[in-house]
Formats: sequence, structure tokens, C-alpha cells
Amino acid sequence: MNDRNATVAVVGAGDFIGAAIAKRFAAEGFTVFAGRRNGDKLAPLVAEIEATGGRIVARSLDARQEEQIVQFLADADRHAPLEVCIFNVGANVNFPLLDTTERVFRKVWEMACYGGFLSAREAARLMLPHGRGAIFFTGATASLRGGIGYAAFASAKFGLRAVAQSAARELGPKNIHVAHLIIDAGVDTAWVRERIKSQHGEEAAANLPPDQLMKPESVADAYWQLYQQPRDAWTFEHEIRPFGEKW
Amino acid sequence: MNDRNATVAVVGAGDFIGAAIAKRFAAEGFTVFAGRRNGDKLAPLVAEIEATGGRIVARSLDARQEEQIVQFLADADRHAPLEVCIFNVGANVNFPLLDTTERVFRKVWEMACYGGFLSAREAARLMLPHGRGAIFFTGATASLRGGIGYAAFASAKFGLRAVAQSAARELGPKNIHVAHLIIDAGVDTAWVRERIKSQHGEEAAANLPPDQLMKPESVADAYWQLYQQPRDAWTFEHEIRPFGEKW
Amino acid sequence: MNDRNATVAVVGAGDFIGAAIAKRFAAEGFTVFAGRRNGDKLAPLVAEIEATGGRIVARSLDARQEEQIVQFLADADRHAPLEVCIFNVGANVNFPLLDTTERVFRKVWEMACYGGFLSAREAARLMLPHGRGAIFFTGATASLRGGIGYAAFASAKFGLRAVAQSAARELGPKNIHVAHLIIDAGVDTAWVRERIKSQHGEEAAANLPPDQLMKPESVADAYWQLYQQPRDAWTFEHEIRPFGEKW
Amino acid sequence: MNDRNATVAVVGAGDFIGAAIAKRFAAEGFTVFAGRRNGDKLAPLVAEIEATGGRIVARSLDARQEEQIVQFLADADRHAPLEVCIFNVGANVNFPLLDTTERVFRKVWEMACYGGFLSAREAARLMLPHGRGAIFFTGATASLRGGIGYAAFASAKFGLRAVAQSAARELGPKNIHVAHLIIDAGVDTAWVRERIKSQHGEEAAANLPPDQLMKPESVADAYWQLYQQPRDAWTFEHEIRPFGEKW
Repeated sequence: MNDRNATVAVVGAGDFIGAAIAKRFAAEGFTVFAGRRNGDKLAPLVAEIEATGGRIVARSLDARQEEQIVQFLADADRHAPLEVCIFNVGANVNFPLLDTTERVFRKVWEMACYGGFLSAREAARLMLPHGRGAIFFTGATASLRGGIGYAAFASAKFGLRAVAQSAARELGPKNIHVAHLIIDAGVDTAWVRERIKSQHGEEAAANLPPDQLMKPESVADAYWQLYQQPRDAWTFEHEIRPFGEKW
Repeated sequence: MNDRNATVAVVGAGDFIGAAIAKRFAAEGFTVFAGRRNGDKLAPLVAEIEATGGRIVARSLDARQEEQIVQFLADADRHAPLEVCIFNVGANVNFPLLDTTERVFRKVWEMACYGGFLSAREAARLMLPHGRGAIFFTGATASLRGGIGYAAFASAKFGLRAVAQSAARELGPKNIHVAHLIIDAGVDTAWVRERIKSQHGEEAAANLPPDQLMKPESVADAYWQLYQQPRDAWTFEHEIRPFGEKW
Repeated sequence: MNDRNATVAVVGAGDFIGAAIAKRFAAEGFTVFAGRRNGDKLAPLVAEIEATGGRIVARSLDARQEEQIVQFLADADRHAPLEVCIFNVGANVNFPLLDTTERVFRKVWEMACYGGFLSAREAARLMLPHGRGAIFFTGATASLRGGIGYAAFASAKFGLRAVAQSAARELGPKNIHVAHLIIDAGVDTAWVRERIKSQHGEEAAANLPPDQLMKPESVADAYWQLYQQPRDAWTFEHEIRPFGEKW
Repeated sequence: MNDRNATVAVVGAGDFIGAAIAKRFAAEGFTVFAGRRNGDKLAPLVAEIEATGGRIVARSLDARQEEQIVQFLADADRHAPLEVCIFNVGANVNFPLLDTTERVFRKVWEMACYGGFLSAREAARLMLPHGRGAIFFTGATASLRGGIGYAAFASAKFGLRAVAQSAARELGPKNIHVAHLIIDAGVDTAWVRERIKSQHGEEAAANLPPDQLMKPESVADAYWQLYQQPRDAWTFEHEIRPFGEKW
């Protein structure tokens, strides 16, 4: 491993995509600052990364709290220059419009959009003096399509995409690479397998063809590829889906 | 005037687009329920509509307050069946990302997106028992493009568009026409004329070619045309811009 | 009927949408120049329009032949100033990629795209000296989406949309309204009813709920509404679909 | 170099992007089949690749001739299994609509769209029996936007994108990766430098900031990254632009 004097901050370091990103960048020599609601749940990830010689700092982080985001990223940048910030908070819910409470609508927005705005703004504030950096956002099918039952989730994801676009246009010429990664598929998580089971039966879930669901590692690879791009050929919007996905 | 037993609710009945919509639908025989932050400012509109024999109810309305939206639309529907609800709250601001405070980001969202969600949900709740209705949203260039300085505004407008899409897919088959009107231009308002003056000088503002700015009446006409569409040929997204506009 | 000293040219005046457009504009006092491959098939339309006091000139027209387009539109403009040109040639085919012959690919493009380019260019040439006019194009779901089996058709429709966009940006400031009408649905034609019958059975075709298919008259109305727009609020892209359509 | 028993076919192997792709894949051990209008012009590329131990077969190829595409790709596949086919024929022209001759409109389409269809169809025919492969297309800003003066070029590029989409949806589930790479920028070629000189003066061309134009090698890298993607996370549309580009 090639140690770097640089940190990657993962806002929303969940068990699947977030963890895969953390492991990928740790393996490349970054110090990982990993934040999630309940920081205790990061213990297995910390153990796994440290076992392979990687460096990670785990934190409890509520991405909806401005002061927490400010401190989390400032701490990361104090540790070593903040080089990459990946906003990966999910909030996928589905309710008919009439059953979408104002509380749900607001909470989904705070998690999936407002937290992304705070992360982007604070990351930019820290990166601009360095003259470089990368700010990435995890998007979804609902970033582009407001489907039935997705008033709350799609609204937040559309809003996050706008933040990403504005940030990209504003920060790109200042050498900060902003990208929005659209995952147009189910990722292979416990939650998605459970949903397939409940909708299509145990057998369907067990017999999923290989590569039909996206592996968290493939998402992490996509982020790594984005980070590797030379600045004369940056991607803003990057979409990925499994080979057999209907779209 | 052909009196109708029907109301149109205008959420965000400002001096320009909102007022033009109110006058157009009043002239077609609707009772107008007009809501804006400070209801006192509606006095001239009320006078103008009543002078021509139209009917209008003016209300102070903060579209960010759930209970106010619920009551405003319920009152409208009690008066006569709620036939059309037009969400027209604007919140156009421009700040560099680093100068966008959390307070601005949240307030713009509450006005331009969250209020639209509340309006759509409550209008649908009242219209579904009637088996018919129309819910329209005012969009902008920033509904489709996150430009420099528009992290807050575009994020809210993207989010509103998602609400509109979800609502359209959910309510269309139930005979409620949901549409999103994208005004890809400056509308001829005091505010826009002032901005042109400050950017390009007094002369430029005075010598604007006719039809170069969009008239509020043309926006009202566009809404009226959408309302007139037969249900075998509904439009969801409708864009309008002046003939000389660059796009 | 209010006679006008103006012609509307319909390139692709088929039995359904084309005929409905012709009747609509004839009823508004335009002289209709109607062209289709086999002009003899226009006899019933001519009879119907003339029976109601309208004026129509029927022509055999192969929209893939430059000199025929040039002459058709020049004749129309000589008759009375060419005010509106509507390109409505269809060429909907579906073949797996491997079964799409070069002959089919080329023919579909010549009909659905190349003919549209020729029509737009020649109409613009005639309208520019008048200082006004409208050029409209019929689009489809395949104008925005390259679905399975649609390599030829979608390619031609995407290409037509590009022609329309370029023409709109070039001609709009010169007071020529260019619009692209996307019909995101099956239109109620003999051909579509036949397809439903073959796919879903006789009963399904007979029991279609009313307004589930788009009426040709509704397409004609949409074109009429576009033509009525004031130039401070022109639409370029206009989409219509039946209330129950999935999208 | 790791020799592979596989060929990559480059249809449109020009001096800049095409040559960079050829060198990149040759360096990875592929045999390159390079085709361009005048095959003699490939001599320097052949010399350069062979000097580094790479393998390349140069051919004169008119991508508008079905039988030539059929034979070029069949020969490549006979040499070693056709693994990748990259369609990279350009035809960037700009004419006002009224000055766009039918000859130009047709020729640009034949080069930039029709040739892409032929290449995709024939590559698929050869790859399907192998059960794998990749078919990539070079797109441009004009693939998404019909700008002023681009009726011919944008129409062809829109049409090519539709072919790519249809092919992707049809072939993806059969393990053939179809992707469309949108280069939203000027690439650093003699032609682009010349254009900058003529528009902005010699000095402007000489003083271009580094990385302001896209390097052909970066396009080749983007293709290589696409080829490296695991099939559970394929990209269809991939956009790249320099960090300082306005969009």
C-alpha cells in the first residue's frame, strides 16, 4: 500500500456501498474518515481495514446537522488534506402521495439532499485553499425519474442532483472535480435481497443470476475511476447499471 | 361571463404571474381563492376582479405551513368544488455555493418545493372524491439546470419537478391532470426590469424589444390552454419562452 | 368560416393525424395544401373539406424527393402566403438490430428525417421574406428513447428532433415559430387498433376505455394551440399523452 | 505487453482520437484493425505501434459502404475474435439551415450515423456467437443539442445516439456492452487549434491553458475504462469534458 497524505471523507458510510468505498480508498493509501448515524456500527469496518494495514477514523455523524458536518470535515482535513468527499446518504422510501406525511417528506429531504448540500459546501471550503479536490454524490434512478410512490425520495434526489450540477459548474474551473454517480439498479444489499424475496419469493431471491445485482465493490470501483480521471476529461454525470437491467 | 360552480386555488398569488392567472380564471367564471404571504397586498387584485364581475377570495397564506395549506384548500373546496390548484410560489435567489447559508437553502426549499408538495397532496385529497381536477406547478429554467449560483434555487425547483412527476404518474389515471409549466425566460415584472437596469443600464431596460420578456398574461394563457386539453391528450411538461430567447 | 389569405402545408397528409390537421386548419379559414405519397387517396378528404366550404389542394408528394418538396411548398406559397408547414410523415417499423437491412434503415431515415429537413429548409426559405410563419414536426416516444427493435425508427426520429431544434434556435429570433410535438402514445388509427387486436385479442380492442387512445382531432387541436401562442411565450417541445398512459 | 487473442476494430481511425485508441488497445495486447477512408494515411500509426511491439492491420475503409464494413469486421474477427468495435467517424460541419444542401445533409448522415448502424449490426453479428464483446460510439455535444448551424451534424449525431441506445437495450442482456461516449469539448487536434486561431487570434491559440482542450489520449483512456467495467456495473452514456469547460 502506497500511503498518501490525504483523507477521503465518506458521509453515509453504511454497510454496503459506504463500506466498499472506504475499503477501496483505504487500500489506495488514503486515510478514511467514515461517518454514519450510529458510529458504533462502524466497528467491523474499522477492524477489517486496520487488519489490512489501512487507516480509518470512525465517527457518529448526523448529516442533517450543520455543525456536525462542519466538524467532521474539518477534522478530516486537519488529519491530512481533504482530497475526496463522497456523499452517500440514502433514504429510499416509497409511499403513495396521499400517505406521504410532512414529516417523512422533510426527513427524506434533510437526509438525501440537505446533508449533501452541507457536505459539498464545507468540503469546497476546505479544498479551495488546497487548489484541488473531488466531491462525489451517490445518485439513483430516482435522481432522473419521479415514479409512482416516490414523491419524497425522488424530490430529494432531484434536489441533490441540482446541488451537484451547481457545484460542478462553480468548482470545476477551480480544479475541484464534482461528479454525480447514478446507480440505475438495485445494489446487492441485505435490504434489496429481502425486498426481492418478499415480492418474488424465496426461490427467486436465491436464484438471481450472477451480476444481476450491482456489487457494492463495483460502485466503489466506479468512484475510484472517477477519481483517476485526468482533469482534461472529467465526467460530471456517470451512470452504471447491470448488463441485464431493463431501462 | 359564464359562472361555474368551481374554484381555482392560486398558491402564491403574487403581483404578476399569480395575479394574471387569477384574472384569467375569474374571467372564465371560476371563483378564485388567492393566497399569498401578506393577504392585504391582494386588495388591488380583488378590486380589479370584482369590478369586472368576477369572484375572488383573498387570504394570507404561508405555503410552508401544513395546516395553512390544508385549511386554505379545504375552504376553497367547501366554497365550490376545487377544480384547479396552481402552485406558483417563487423563491429565485442567487448565491455562490460558499455563501449559501443553511437558512437560505432551507427556506428556499420550503417555499418552492415543500409548499408545492403540501399543495399537491391536499389538492389531490380533495379532488379524488370529485373524480376530476387539475394540479399545475410553475417551473423555471432552474427546474432543468443547476447553474452557477443556483445551488439553493435549482435544488428546490428540481425537487418540485420530481413531486410533479410523481403526482402526474399517480393521479393521471385517476383523471387528475398534473402539469409542470417551465418558464424558460424572464417574465415582465418590476423585479426583472430592475435587474436588467442594474446589469445593462437604464437605456437597455427602456428599449427592450416588444415580446422580448414574457407577459404574465401569456403564462396565464398557457395555464388556461393546459386546463382546456382533452384527457386523451394531456401535457405533463410544458415549456414556454419568448421568440428571441437564447436556449 | 373566416377566410384567410394564407396556406398551411401538410407534408404527410395520411388518413388520421394528417387529415385531422387539414380539417382543423381548413375550418379556420386556411387553404390547405395536402401532400401524400399517393395523392389519389386524398379524394375523400377533399370532398369532406369542400363540403363544409373549406379549401384544399391535394397533391401526390414523395417527401424524400427534394425537387418535389421544393415545388409543393413553392406552389402553396404562390397560392397564398405559406403561413404554416407541418411535417407529419410517419415510418414506424420495428425490427431486431440484426434483421434491420440497410435498405430499411435508409428508407425510414429518408421518410422520417430527411424529408423533414427538406420541408423545414424550404418552408423557411419561403417564410423569411414574409417575416413570419410556423414550422411544426410530429414526434413520437421514439424521438426521445431508442427502445428494443427501434434502431431504425428511433434513429430517424432523434435525427428529426435535432433538425427541429437547430431550426428553432436559428429561426425563432426571425419570428418563425418552430415546434416539435411529441405524441407519447398510440393514436386511434386503424393500424393501432389492428395491432392491439393481434396482440391482446378482439375483445381487448373492442373494450378499450374511452380516451385511452389519442384521437387524431386532439393532435390537430394541439397543433392549433401551438399556432395560437403569442410570440412572447412560444413552446418548442410539446408532449401529449392520454390520461391513463404509462410513462 | 500481454498478448491477447482478440481484436479491436476502430472504424474511423483518424490522426487524433482514432490513433490514440489504436495505440492504447495495442499497448494492452490487442490486435488493432484500423480503418479510415485513405488507408495509406495509417502508415505512421502502423510504424509507431509496430515499433513498440504492437500489432495492427491498416485498411482503407469507407464506412458508408455496407460491403466494406461487413468485410472489414469479418476480417478482424477471422484474425482473432472481435472483442471491441469502436465507431469513431466524425463529420463536424456547420452551415446555416438555408445553406445546408441535400448533398451535405445526406453525406454527414451517411458518415456519422449510417456507418455507425452498419458497424454496430455487423459487430453484433460477429460477437453474439462469442457470447461477449463491446461496441462503443464516439458522441459529441451535438449528440444532445441541436445548436445553430448544426441541423446536419446534430441530426446525424442524435441519430447515432438512438442506434446506440437501441443496441444497448437489445445486446446488453446478451453480454455485449454498448456505450456512447459524449465528448463535450474540443479535442486537441490540428483542426481545433486552427479554428481557435482563426476565431480568437494566434496568441489565444498559443496561450491556451494546459488541460483546456481534451487530449486524444484521455479519450482513449475513457474507452479503456469503459472496457474494464465489470458487467454488473456497465455505463451506457459516458460524458467527459475539461475541468474549465462551460456547460
